Amino acid sequence: MRVLILGGDGYLGWATAMHLSARGHSVMAVDNGLRRRLSREIGAAPLVEVPELAERANIWRAASGHAVKVLQGDVCDYAFLSGVFRDFQPDALVHYAEQPSAPFSMDGRDRAALTLQNNLMSTLNVAFAVRDICPKCHIIKLGTMGEYGTPNIDIEEGYLEVAHKGRTHKFLYPKTPGSIYHLTKVQDSDLLYFATRIWKLAITDLNQGPVYGLETPELAADVRLAPHFNYDDVFGTVLNRFVVQAVAGFPLTVYGAGRQTRGYLNIVDTMQCVELALTQPAKPGEFRVFNQFTETFAVTDLAEKVRDAGRQTGLDVAIKSIENPRVEAEEHYYNPANTGLIELGLQPHPLTGDVLAGMIGYVQRHANTIDQAQMLPRVRWR
Amino acid sequence: MRVLILGGDGYLGWATAMHLSARGHSVMAVDNGLRRRLSREIGAAPLVEVPELAERANIWRAASGHAVKVLQGDVCDYAFLSGVFRDFQPDALVHYAEQPSAPFSMDGRDRAALTLQNNLMSTLNVAFAVRDICPKCHIIKLGTMGEYGTPNIDIEEGYLEVAHKGRTHKFLYPKTPGSIYHLTKVQDSDLLYFATRIWKLAITDLNQGPVYGLETPELAADVRLAPHFNYDDVFGTVLNRFVVQAVAGFPLTVYGAGRQTRGYLNIVDTMQCVELALTQPAKPGEFRVFNQFTETFAVTDLAEKVRDAGRQTGLDVAIKSIENPRVEAEEHYYNPANTGLIELGLQPHPLTGDVLAGMIGYVQRHANTIDQAQMLPRVRWR
Repeated sequence: MRVLILGGDGYLGWATAMHLSARGHSVMAVDNGLRRRLSREIGAAPLVEVPELAERANIWRAASGHAVKVLQGDVCDYAFLSGVFRDFQPDALVHYAEQPSAPFSMDGRDRAALTLQNNLMSTLNVAFAVRDICPKCHIIKLGTMGEYGTPNIDIEEGYLEVAHKGRTHKFLYPKTPGSIYHLTKVQDSDLLYFATRIWKLAITDLNQGPVYGLETPELAADVRLAPHFNYDDVFGTVLNRFVVQAVAGFPLTVYGAGRQTRGYLNIVDTMQCVELALTQPAKPGEFRVFNQFTETFAVTDLAEKVRDAGRQTGLDVAIKSIENPRVEAEEHYYNPANTGLIELGLQPHPLTGDVLAGMIGYVQRHANTIDQAQMLPRVRWR
Repeated sequence: MRVLILGGDGYLGWATAMHLSARGHSVMAVDNGLRRRLSREIGAAPLVEVPELAERANIWRAASGHAVKVLQGDVCDYAFLSGVFRDFQPDALVHYAEQPSAPFSMDGRDRAALTLQNNLMSTLNVAFAVRDICPKCHIIKLGTMGEYGTPNIDIEEGYLEVAHKGRTHKFLYPKTPGSIYHLTKVQDSDLLYFATRIWKLAITDLNQGPVYGLETPELAADVRLAPHFNYDDVFGTVLNRFVVQAVAGFPLTVYGAGRQTRGYLNIVDTMQCVELALTQPAKPGEFRVFNQFTETFAVTDLAEKVRDAGRQTGLDVAIKSIENPRVEAEEHYYNPANTGLIELGLQPHPLTGDVLAGMIGYVQRHANTIDQAQMLPRVRWR
């Protein structure tokens, strides 16, 4: 298949590009460099600097023999995007082209506006390019479990059948996001749901939990193919940050009571999920939703796992609760469904001691670059 | 109170500015002229050309002695809007500064993008200006009943208590909009709900049905103070269009089966509702939602009422079903709640024969300007 990856230079975008090209798909990766620019702007650096997108594609081709076409450009620029569609004629696309950080989106009006503008205009353009140029193109959109918030009832997979005063109706599951970033993800889910109802596009929405790890099989070919591994408070995800803190001898920073519970998954399972959605696509007019995570943990559970794995390798790891910079429930009910991707064939990779030992080993090999100034939260929700 | 009216030159904005200034409030009306520009762009003219905003304010001051400050500028320009907030220090604002037409929003990518950009950026800027400059300012935002769509259960007023697997949760009522315009209204409701949860802003969301009529008491002072009265397929609302069609001897154009049922209200009741929300404001942290309509009618009910009122005045009125340009249910369950504003004190003005006779009389006095080319739908949803 011809697969277009929007945001192909990101943490997941580049890993997806390699993964799908290794499976014989014709892959084009598009990126405007936003994530790199914003990381620099806030003074956050990944643990290891990774080559520019074009160079990554060269390294990957040399190492694997697989070609990934790369293109610099902005999905928010419709003239650019429609040109890409006319030239490449994608059978499917994976839409990662969004500003991905909740703290960044909460850092004042201009960053909120950038997030809103980027995430909604990119999604609107995707919907119109598919509608008007490649109407059979299957859209795979990355959403987030954070869209749901923490309601006091079970989180179902995408839809909620409501019985009310003797009648019933099936709604798209109502969402209660906790940051401007998450809000934009709710808004673009609503936009794409609309595009399936009115224009009969075929769309899969993957509501993903926080992703951890970096060791996909493709990485074995050349270590320079690793994803951006951020551990800062803005672009780093919580488990990656805990591992870096453990290696640096910095206490693991748990926000507040630490009973905030979320669904997590390993990056290798993200690759599986995207591939499963690609090879078993949604039907025209279908807005197919999967909750994409393999295990749920409270933040304190994660911290304890990292502490225990660290001790196995001789690290002395402390855990410290700090004031929560976010506005969120620190104790709450949480029971989300995630059977859809398992039914499609997902084989989960749980968060074992071995997985943590592998992550700790990778970080230890790059420990000299760790910057402790990046580890404490700088953005407050209020 | 110091009341800022954003979109103060629109169909409802200008009527609101006069209404509130007549009740002793200090009113500033801000507008960027978007509605006028877009009407010209699509070749639609209101039945009567109304003076520019500054001139309206001059006429109103001469006729009534009440001053409305007017300011030309774009709410999407945060430098401009934050200046307005610092200078005027509003106690409350009424946010009408949105592209208000569903058909316009469905007329290709660029018009969809304009609608999304304008409606969401204006709302984001409003939230930040209140948060950062006038945190006690009460936001009154005009939403629409169209946000809800036509679910198969009762439409409650803002929230829905869901019982599910032995647990319960109260959600903001889930919305299923039917145009890009309505989608943006859902998205900005979500944005403002977020602003109440996280930043504790005080917000009233008025989910309004289609408005008809033009005769507010302030109009008696000078006929040039009338609102924009559009009857075209893009900016006209259905009842206003039917009245113009009746006067022109053009069949009333019912889309499809015509059993699409919605809640409607007279513009004089819009004025009452906004004033009630203003004088009995939401509390900090409260996202207060009212369903703002007084009666529900199917489209065919409206057509028959106009036909009957027309016959009373000697007009020969035909009704004609035409192919529905929209994607919508033409037969559906519809039972929306609307008790909140009644409890605050709303005295509804029902759609009587007298009201219709008054509208027909106004249109007859301007019948020479009617352009029949504006009466058939030009925008298709698919």
